[in-house]
Amino acid sequence: MNESSINLARKLDLIGAMWCPKVVAELNDYQIKLVKIEGEFVWHQHDDTDELFVCLKGRVRIELPDTHVDLGEGELYVVPKGVSHRPVAEGECHLMLIEPRGVVNTGDVDSTLTAPGDEWI
Amino acid sequence: MNESSINLARKLDLIGAMWCPKVVAELNDYQIKLVKIEGEFVWHQHDDTDELFVCLKGRVRIELPDTHVDLGEGELYVVPKGVSHRPVAEGECHLMLIEPRGVVNTGDVDSTLTAPGDEWI
Repeated sequence: MNESSINLARKLDLIGAMWCPKVVAELNDYQIKLVKIEGEFVWHQHDDTDELFVCLKGRVRIELPDTHVDLGEGELYVVPKGVSHRPVAEGECHLMLIEPRGVVNTGDVDSTLTAPGDEWI
Repeated sequence: MNESSINLARKLDLIGAMWCPKVVAELNDYQIKLVKIEGEFVWHQHDDTDELFVCLKGRVRIELPDTHVDLGEGELYVVPKGVSHRPVAEGECHLMLIEPRGVVNTGDVDSTLTAPGDEWI
């Protein structure tokens, strides 16, 4: 057995493109993903699952139907299932996302920002 | 709707006792917990679930049957279900744990370190 920790900063160094979540670990049928973002994402929702956002670096505003949540480093928010949302980051921002395996980043919306799922780093 | 982020450092300031995980958010039927630890925990296992450890501050060694994993700040590890483990921290260490609602901190073992479940901060 050769076990080792997963270093988030080192994994993030492997990510180039914005808005393309990469899987770093699994927890039962959930996946722990890292993503770099900058700019405005697309409004979307996940009808079947909540989605955990943890801000690791930078800042992100998660726009919601009638409000928004601002996340800085070391802050988290769970977007409830079925709630439309749009992440917006003025500068580069690094996030950890946790959600069930198979969740598509743009949820119910087909977009040029729709990323391939289940890509590991 | 009055939504706000969860600041991990501010939540950790609310925790006094070591080895007593507190819930800060839920993701479907999973709970996001924070815990402060120092010293040696008890060997135990969770027969029905994996367990995610994210080190937020300090260092922890997760002892496993034939090996161990050392976690520093910004590192994570998923202990697979059914695998016996024992966290050990020489100094104070702050962790984020994610696991299904209802998981007991000492798993299959009844111990003086067994903490009340489902306590929120």
